[in-house]
Amino acid sequence: MPLTDPDRLFPYDDALRGLARALYSSIQTLPILSPHGHCDPQWFAQNKRFPNPAELFVTPDHYVFRMLVSQGVSMDDLGIPRIDGGPVEQDPRKIWQLFAKHIHLFHGTPSGLWLNHSFEHVFGFLEPLTVENADDYYDHIDTTLAMDEFRPRAMFDRFKIDCLATTEGALDDLRWHKQIIQSDWSGRVITTYRPDAVVDPEFEGFVDNLARFGELTGENTATWDGYLTAHRVRRAFFRDHGATATDHGHPTARTEDLPQDEAAALFAKAISGRCTLAEADAFRGQMLTEMARMSVEDGMTMQIHAGSSRNHSARVFASHGRDKGFDIPRRCDFVDALKPMLDAVGMEPDLTILLFTLDETTYGRELAPLAGAYPALKLGPAWWFFDSAEGIKRYRQITTETCGFYNTAGFNDDTRAFCSIPARHDVSRRVDASYLAELVASGRLTEDDAFDLAKVLTTDLVKSAYKL
Amino acid sequence: MPLTDPDRLFPYDDALRGLARALYSSIQTLPILSPHGHCDPQWFAQNKRFPNPAELFVTPDHYVFRMLVSQGVSMDDLGIPRIDGGPVEQDPRKIWQLFAKHIHLFHGTPSGLWLNHSFEHVFGFLEPLTVENADDYYDHIDTTLAMDEFRPRAMFDRFKIDCLATTEGALDDLRWHKQIIQSDWSGRVITTYRPDAVVDPEFEGFVDNLARFGELTGENTATWDGYLTAHRVRRAFFRDHGATATDHGHPTARTEDLPQDEAAALFAKAISGRCTLAEADAFRGQMLTEMARMSVEDGMTMQIHAGSSRNHSARVFASHGRDKGFDIPRRCDFVDALKPMLDAVGMEPDLTILLFTLDETTYGRELAPLAGAYPALKLGPAWWFFDSAEGIKRYRQITTETCGFYNTAGFNDDTRAFCSIPARHDVSRRVDASYLAELVASGRLTEDDAFDLAKVLTTDLVKSAYKL
Amino acid sequence: MPLTDPDRLFPYDDALRGLARALYSSIQTLPILSPHGHCDPQWFAQNKRFPNPAELFVTPDHYVFRMLVSQGVSMDDLGIPRIDGGPVEQDPRKIWQLFAKHIHLFHGTPSGLWLNHSFEHVFGFLEPLTVENADDYYDHIDTTLAMDEFRPRAMFDRFKIDCLATTEGALDDLRWHKQIIQSDWSGRVITTYRPDAVVDPEFEGFVDNLARFGELTGENTATWDGYLTAHRVRRAFFRDHGATATDHGHPTARTEDLPQDEAAALFAKAISGRCTLAEADAFRGQMLTEMARMSVEDGMTMQIHAGSSRNHSARVFASHGRDKGFDIPRRCDFVDALKPMLDAVGMEPDLTILLFTLDETTYGRELAPLAGAYPALKLGPAWWFFDSAEGIKRYRQITTETCGFYNTAGFNDDTRAFCSIPARHDVSRRVDASYLAELVASGRLTEDDAFDLAKVLTTDLVKSAYKL
Repeated sequence: MPLTDPDRLFPYDDALRGLARALYSSIQTLPILSPHGHCDPQWFAQNKRFPNPAELFVTPDHYVFRMLVSQGVSMDDLGIPRIDGGPVEQDPRKIWQLFAKHIHLFHGTPSGLWLNHSFEHVFGFLEPLTVENADDYYDHIDTTLAMDEFRPRAMFDRFKIDCLATTEGALDDLRWHKQIIQSDWSGRVITTYRPDAVVDPEFEGFVDNLARFGELTGENTATWDGYLTAHRVRRAFFRDHGATATDHGHPTARTEDLPQDEAAALFAKAISGRCTLAEADAFRGQMLTEMARMSVEDGMTMQIHAGSSRNHSARVFASHGRDKGFDIPRRCDFVDALKPMLDAVGMEPDLTILLFTLDETTYGRELAPLAGAYPALKLGPAWWFFDSAEGIKRYRQITTETCGFYNTAGFNDDTRAFCSIPARHDVSRRVDASYLAELVASGRLTEDDAFDLAKVLTTDLVKSAYKL
Repeated sequence: MPLTDPDRLFPYDDALRGLARALYSSIQTLPILSPHGHCDPQWFAQNKRFPNPAELFVTPDHYVFRMLVSQGVSMDDLGIPRIDGGPVEQDPRKIWQLFAKHIHLFHGTPSGLWLNHSFEHVFGFLEPLTVENADDYYDHIDTTLAMDEFRPRAMFDRFKIDCLATTEGALDDLRWHKQIIQSDWSGRVITTYRPDAVVDPEFEGFVDNLARFGELTGENTATWDGYLTAHRVRRAFFRDHGATATDHGHPTARTEDLPQDEAAALFAKAISGRCTLAEADAFRGQMLTEMARMSVEDGMTMQIHAGSSRNHSARVFASHGRDKGFDIPRRCDFVDALKPMLDAVGMEPDLTILLFTLDETTYGRELAPLAGAYPALKLGPAWWFFDSAEGIKRYRQITTETCGFYNTAGFNDDTRAFCSIPARHDVSRRVDASYLAELVASGRLTEDDAFDLAKVLTTDLVKSAYKL
Repeated sequence: MPLTDPDRLFPYDDALRGLARALYSSIQTLPILSPHGHCDPQWFAQNKRFPNPAELFVTPDHYVFRMLVSQGVSMDDLGIPRIDGGPVEQDPRKIWQLFAKHIHLFHGTPSGLWLNHSFEHVFGFLEPLTVENADDYYDHIDTTLAMDEFRPRAMFDRFKIDCLATTEGALDDLRWHKQIIQSDWSGRVITTYRPDAVVDPEFEGFVDNLARFGELTGENTATWDGYLTAHRVRRAFFRDHGATATDHGHPTARTEDLPQDEAAALFAKAISGRCTLAEADAFRGQMLTEMARMSVEDGMTMQIHAGSSRNHSARVFASHGRDKGFDIPRRCDFVDALKPMLDAVGMEPDLTILLFTLDETTYGRELAPLAGAYPALKLGPAWWFFDSAEGIKRYRQITTETCGFYNTAGFNDDTRAFCSIPARHDVSRRVDASYLAELVASGRLTEDDAFDLAKVLTTDLVKSAYKL
């Protein structure tokens, strides 16, 4: 038996499984559109080999190593760099062995499924990883990575990625994107404008960031008007490097639409470094509306990723810094929070604002009703902890009845784990195919419409939502 | 293949499907009890033909046209009247064609299922509506509506509606109900007492409404005692026109049980037009308890529909007014909110208060535990966005284990779309039959009990909850 | 047909059912570990016969009698003692008949399943309880209870209970546990340290309780240090009577980690009886962190049961007191609430804190992400209203993908209904077996891993979480 079941994630009933399989077959080999994620553009610019199995699968992926940490494995033993530069494990083989020893923790998890998919479909393994074969696994992956066909660009092409969006801060010089564009490689790697560092007064170095923002744009970012113009300039720069979208990671979905003189006064406080937590929150909210207005002007799709309580453990944040698996979702309300922005731009037919949530209770109660009414709103796909078999199924079951399929936006992998991209899209396609098959089998959809929709969900809605 | 699958919404497994079908067959043709909804009593009083297909299916039903609006279709092109009386599309055929062009938006939605059910079972169509056949559809429906058998009373009888409750404001003269009662037609169309306009200090024209309330009842509604008496008088008037229930649409489930002198002082503030938002909210809460106490006196069932954020879009409210598809659910808490009312009347064995929610998270956490304890409380059925195949299934799966079947109240269609009534009850019967079949198949219920319960859910619980 | 279907709670699809049955068979007869519950240790210390059917099944179990109350049956007629000592039904046969008359209320509920399981597997009934056979049922149970094989210790042994934890307050003298330990019976009945009465300033008699706490421990509980030492002393006393865990029933999950001088000042206020509601809440929060620190010292597992709104009905509380079926879950947030405690001890690899919730929305949004990161945290099983077929299924479907199986802690029955213990564990085993079978059938788990996990969930995780 292979590592991955060819019929994985399909329904059990024979007839239903047959239909799900047929629907999946019709979309299985469609090119991958990855309109939002966190891959490193340097990989594709330089096209160097990936260093070793541990640095490919374990240490950069906090959704893998946090599971070991949750069972008492120390980050030091996993080679996760410390803030104080203190000693951590340096031997990738030892890290890999520690990972193999705890592979059972991933039973029943999406990470487990993605790992097995990569092991089989990228590296050709047929046996699951165990303590016993950990060294063989390591050697085989390491040898394979040395081959030209396993360099980033070759993998990108083999994965049939039609377009991959990365995410860069507003101050990024986009050198890797420029290098990719100027190269002879035809792969489409585009950037996304993520201005949190110059929008969030609580961001580390916010005031310095604004100064740098001014230098980069030649605008006077000490004034509200200059600051807004700097965004316009920078958005255009990002569009020149392929960007079709912006992205906003906020603790809540709060928006504001203050009179411009009040917004300017709030900005003055923020830039002075003297604004309160409440004022910082209001400023972030104001900036979502400003960004939405700029999207009406320049056509960029706007993504709002709200509701993560970042760096929850003070101890881990102090010892190891950001992005170490301690980002915890929190309750997130959208109905009142989005109203100021929606009153400003919600009825614009050519604007696209994509909403992402980590609070599944908002799917049916808030997001689907909102997306099923406002022309400017669409639902982003199931996000983060929920881009899993059960998570995507719940997403479809809860949202479709209220906002239909056409107010959704296809799939995002949102990953920094490059090898998992085909695995993640495959899961999404299988779950959608199964959902469509169930609608047909229960008389809620014709078979013809199901085949059409399978392609719409995989391709068409992504292209239109992100203008690809 | 017909437009609607004869086995729609049943489980896929053969044995299970057979049992679900048998259970459904036992209730399929039972008369419809529609104890809560928003049909227009004028239809049945005057018995005029429905004007045309667009005015039957599209323009009055904001849960149809909002889906087109969400994809950028303008309300003007859909013929939705403007507040300013500005020009909107007047040709019902053009509106119908625009609707047909976007019919794919309803794939996988309950609206889609209800529309197809009406098209096939009311108008005899066997092909789905498309752009190509839109004119044929229009002509056929229009011709059919001209026939005597398709006038409102004939349809009411053919739909086998045993009782239909409409909903009227406290100031309504109930002329259409009187006309129906005095007519030679035997159809049972009853009213429901909905006093929001004279209970909610934030309602448009509240103070004027109270004056009118005084005129209608001959009570001095400028005093707290006179005001309460006016409610008693008006409730009796509604009972004379068939009402067995009251209905209360509040933004939250807040209740209060203030000492009567404090309640009187709050009323004095409200009637002076000077109460704050917080005081208005408290007054609404107080009135729920007062209404519950009157229900103990006069036996009327009390319905609380809480948790909708009405008219969310300021722009749409300004241009097109209320009920345009922009009512968005919000989080709603019941545990603390209902305590004052429940401390006052919750243990009354002969009182029935029906709770409806748009926040599904409260089913298992709050509503089922409350209904499974307090004699006065029962759960209303899945409401609004959730009276769908998946919504009703979730409702049963989450509530039954905690409060059983007997603390629920059967089905409500809650619709103003007359032709969808049989479709909606059919969905409910199919989903309940499927749920019962699953309980039997998983050893949680005997087959005999399942057949008994199918009828209990369809008929008995509705009759007892609404005293029909 | 027997009262309980041998294939109950398994999936319907034949192949899937076969696998679920095989998985269940592999764990069906494993000994029961009951690490948290509310049985009375006196039963096993004295080993007297259970008095009669009504006192075995109805009057002590508020999750049975509340269902009758919810349909208007009076507590007096059910023989529930009144606070004022007023007359209530004394004839257990009449109570039993009233119970039998309403047995249909339990259709589709876990109570119904547990009752039938006990009726068949403990008392040998093959026909469901009805009004007609209520007297025969009564007589048979009553006669059976008179047999030596149906005394508490014999039932404990026949149920194959390997370990049963009861729950005692900090002031309990543990006399029954001492008597069990000193007896010649080998059954393992252990206590659990539940200090709410000396931790919660709002608890009835808190100040007196602290005085008694001082007497029992010989510590000066009028000082913060003495008070903390008293807890240490008392925890050791409980450990001497078998305790491996503490338990904390708080209205919310709030924790605090104040500087010790501020904590001492808060304690001084609490002991003076003058602290505000907010200060009482803060003090409870502080004590969770203190208890966690003591658990780091002494190795006791810490259980937090948060989010119940106890004694919701003021009228019932006044007439009949605590634990009468009117405890209602409320919304409960963990992310911010637990942060102070987690910042203090969350990364301790040898500490185990088990979190229980009545708010299922927190499974995926908060608890699984937290347990999937912090070494000290594990998820307790589905609790109270949710330790049911659907509840446990939702628990697995929502938590597993984010925190895996190994951050959970097996099953708790948490009951005071002794005869239901085998029934409850049986439900859990069947639902887990079915869940594992579905993972296998959908290619998310190998069959070998599923068999391993079935045992891990039933036994290993309980033993490790509770150090049994």
